[in-house]
Amino acid sequence: MLPEQMLAWGYTRNCIREVMEYGTIRKQEIGAENVYDYSIGNPSIPAPDCVNEAIADLIKGDSVALHGYTTAAGLPSVRDAIAKNLNDTYDLGLTGDLFYITCGCASSIAIALRAVLFPGDEVLVNAPFFPEYRVFTEASRGVVRVVPPRDDFQIDFDALKAALGPKTKAVIINSPNNPSGMVYSEETLKELAAILREHEKAIGETVYLITDEPYRELVYDMDKTPNAMCYYDDTFICYSFSKCMSIPGERIGYLAVSPRMHDKTAVYAAVLGAGRALGYINPPSLFQRVIERTVGAHSDFSQYKINRDILTAGLRKIGYECVDPRGAFYLFAKALEPDAKAFCEHAKKYELLLVPSNDFGMTGYFRMAYCVNRDMIAKSMPAFQKLWDDYHK
Amino acid sequence: MLPEQMLAWGYTRNCIREVMEYGTIRKQEIGAENVYDYSIGNPSIPAPDCVNEAIADLIKGDSVALHGYTTAAGLPSVRDAIAKNLNDTYDLGLTGDLFYITCGCASSIAIALRAVLFPGDEVLVNAPFFPEYRVFTEASRGVVRVVPPRDDFQIDFDALKAALGPKTKAVIINSPNNPSGMVYSEETLKELAAILREHEKAIGETVYLITDEPYRELVYDMDKTPNAMCYYDDTFICYSFSKCMSIPGERIGYLAVSPRMHDKTAVYAAVLGAGRALGYINPPSLFQRVIERTVGAHSDFSQYKINRDILTAGLRKIGYECVDPRGAFYLFAKALEPDAKAFCEHAKKYELLLVPSNDFGMTGYFRMAYCVNRDMIAKSMPAFQKLWDDYHK
Repeated sequence: MLPEQMLAWGYTRNCIREVMEYGTIRKQEIGAENVYDYSIGNPSIPAPDCVNEAIADLIKGDSVALHGYTTAAGLPSVRDAIAKNLNDTYDLGLTGDLFYITCGCASSIAIALRAVLFPGDEVLVNAPFFPEYRVFTEASRGVVRVVPPRDDFQIDFDALKAALGPKTKAVIINSPNNPSGMVYSEETLKELAAILREHEKAIGETVYLITDEPYRELVYDMDKTPNAMCYYDDTFICYSFSKCMSIPGERIGYLAVSPRMHDKTAVYAAVLGAGRALGYINPPSLFQRVIERTVGAHSDFSQYKINRDILTAGLRKIGYECVDPRGAFYLFAKALEPDAKAFCEHAKKYELLLVPSNDFGMTGYFRMAYCVNRDMIAKSMPAFQKLWDDYHK
Repeated sequence: MLPEQMLAWGYTRNCIREVMEYGTIRKQEIGAENVYDYSIGNPSIPAPDCVNEAIADLIKGDSVALHGYTTAAGLPSVRDAIAKNLNDTYDLGLTGDLFYITCGCASSIAIALRAVLFPGDEVLVNAPFFPEYRVFTEASRGVVRVVPPRDDFQIDFDALKAALGPKTKAVIINSPNNPSGMVYSEETLKELAAILREHEKAIGETVYLITDEPYRELVYDMDKTPNAMCYYDDTFICYSFSKCMSIPGERIGYLAVSPRMHDKTAVYAAVLGAGRALGYINPPSLFQRVIERTVGAHSDFSQYKINRDILTAGLRKIGYECVDPRGAFYLFAKALEPDAKAFCEHAKKYELLLVPSNDFGMTGYFRMAYCVNRDMIAKSMPAFQKLWDDYHK
């Protein structure tokens, strides 16, 4: 007898991993150059040179100190460096002692939820959303409530208000958004903050805003992403260096507690406790020091912008209806039949690997990660045309 | 309102971290050279050269591949290399697909428990034990039952039998042992296996043996540590490269499912599910590849053996009663008063940082980590003498 929930999460992948793994097999069968793999958000451009330079320099130092245990929250000097960098951008008044360095954004979210949830507490997630939010919420015995978006993929505030209730403990947002590529406007965040503040008053309990920001720097048509912690006090920032530095495999990120969060000392303690509960000892020590030296650096995003423009123009020319891609490296488009899964299955006929929107909490769309080889985009256009033709005979 | 358990785990450290953190402050106050810090098992000898050599070579390669996502269980080639190495030592018939690479031993144990426990299931831990076993068990809603050891610190089988019951789901062992330095004999493991097999039959349920082996190679008076998976089929091996390679901060280890475990395919799936539930995406990618190239290498343990011999001889000469230190890098000795906490508190008077045995599930002992600077051991002897004299006026 084994716990059913663990078996279920183990036997199934999320939709992204499923398509990716199909792709691995298919590439072996017919050659990687013949598969148009838009499945996974694995950065396609190298880490900035300073990353490997920092590694090369660090390993010249004392091995015992470099590879040894650190405090659970991460080295104080690393936390201070990150706090300074974030304050320089957003003037949040953060200090190093409000940071808990993690093994990436997923860990940050899992820990934040574990720190605050009681069994049965509700977590509002704004569709379309990263499928693992559901896993992390349910693993902490919370209940997910999905809030559908507005047509322009900003938050639908009427739907949000309808979903808020006496058991709402947290709201998760993700901007720039995976999978829609949408970026929440300052206006959206202010309105969200006002609604949550009002709801806190109404229920007499803290409602935590968890802002999942691995794509924070990945915006193409604006200076910077508006940050929710500027507008709402009870905010956790969950961040990863995966995407901005093209190091997703190294698992390094953080969780930051707002300096204005209600009862922040207790919340930070609960974060430490949750980290222990989930088996974390300390974030990887070499990469902590790499981040201390490189924080603020990023990969050459201009490559993604070119990819985005080519892909979006190409698909729109054929006739596909695409959500305006403002950030991250995903294009979200309408499937050509109501059943997105069936559509993505059909697309495999032309070796197009697309992720259906179902696990993101929406039907009828598909996601393309455009952090890919540029030649592949050009080569895939005839396949997208054939797919279109199949639906428009 | 925050979950009490998370607050409790966050506000308190385990005893080891508490003493270590006192040490950090004390060293700032009076100078590191004046503090005799035996608190934490942070390896004091460098990683084998091949570790940093592998890093230097790997970063010359393709950055996107090196730092990119891997499969959740770790790269197949890494798992195969580890399986081969382990089979060469113990002939266990392990294959790569039975391995799940983790962020170290703590993660491995947390994931194994989460994979198999139902609420209320009992986990038997053999004292003295690593304090986090309790955290990981209770975080998965299990109940810890402590089994006291025999006088020679092997398993007390009568006590074990008395603790086994209808709700026993797992038994955790740790040999070489932190904190006692004891190594379980082949005889002990065979007897343990026989008892667990019999109990499985009696209750008609699988009883999992979780063998926590971060110190596996750290034995000084024998060829190799006997391995429990050789004798009992329903065994998980939890391992970390932290101690053998002196890289505890890098968080890389694994969980291996016995090829003879009952229902091993389902159990492995539950492990994958538990890893997702706890927020793990993949183990650190650079260090996966480091391990692939270096597995089997280890730091120069002869340094620990010299430390052990000097410390043990010195303390015994004064009159301290020490448990025979066979492995790991800990010496476990009798406190000079029944209350180990009071004793360790008193020892601070002479700047001796010792860890009381209470959190390890025993009273009346203290632990010394002898992975320390050798000069410190010599310099600390007069302090141990003064401490002794205080109790023998």
